[in-house]
Amino acid sequence: MSAEGAVPEGTSLSVDPEILGAVRFDAAGLVTVVIQDAQAGDVLGVAYMNEESLRLTLETGRVWYWSRSRQELWRKGDTSGDRQYARELRVDCDGDALLLRVDQSGRGNCHTGDWSCFARRVAEGPGAASSPAAAHR
Amino acid sequence: MSAEGAVPEGTSLSVDPEILGAVRFDAAGLVTVVIQDAQAGDVLGVAYMNEESLRLTLETGRVWYWSRSRQELWRKGDTSGDRQYARELRVDCDGDALLLRVDQSGRGNCHTGDWSCFARRVAEGPGAASSPAAAHR
Repeated sequence: MSAEGAVPEGTSLSVDPEILGAVRFDAAGLVTVVIQDAQAGDVLGVAYMNEESLRLTLETGRVWYWSRSRQELWRKGDTSGDRQYARELRVDCDGDALLLRVDQSGRGNCHTGDWSCFARRVAEGPGAASSPAAAHR
Repeated sequence: MSAEGAVPEGTSLSVDPEILGAVRFDAAGLVTVVIQDAQAGDVLGVAYMNEESLRLTLETGRVWYWSRSRQELWRKGDTSGDRQYARELRVDCDGDALLLRVDQSGRGNCHTGDWSCFARRVAEGPGAASSPAAAHR
């Protein structure tokens, strides 16, 4: 993706304006974002975007979220170094959830240092171990 | 998974009670659930569970959700025939999102008849088409 040591700024995405118009922000101005590793398919976590963070993500290719706890815009990786580069964005049938497929750099998505925020397994059943695209590396 | 024509009832999951205790329900009593195809890794959609639907899912192996629009418990597939069988459940770092990995039967997860609710692409950038685990078949 990028040379070691370089700080790539990402590449803007090609947007379908009609489908972008289907995105619905909730009463707090936010939309739920499912973050997926574009390469392996791992689900890395759930985050939130407001309209500005969505616009910045599409324009710059670096991923911006809205922090509900800090109530501020936040460019992923500026503190941790664990940057995300947006590769594809999809919207669900009723417009209130996004699927953001990223190239993840650094340690991973989670503030704990884990690759995925879904590091803890609550339960497993038949077939759980057979998947080619595990949630957690 | 099952013989054609049979209606398998699923298999209860093996639960880690300590990690289950990390699940946090919001003010409305709900937790966000990311639904992932346990086989291919496709993200199928986002739904919600309350405590009872989570318990029923873990006990029966069939997937139960809470419908925010209808305000009722709902066993996936009872109307559509598109059942889900729970294979693995994970919880994220702050406990307010679940990753549910399922074997999907029938047409798929979406009420539209699509395999994934994320059928619409808002934007794409470099590398979007190269992934081995597409969001949408």
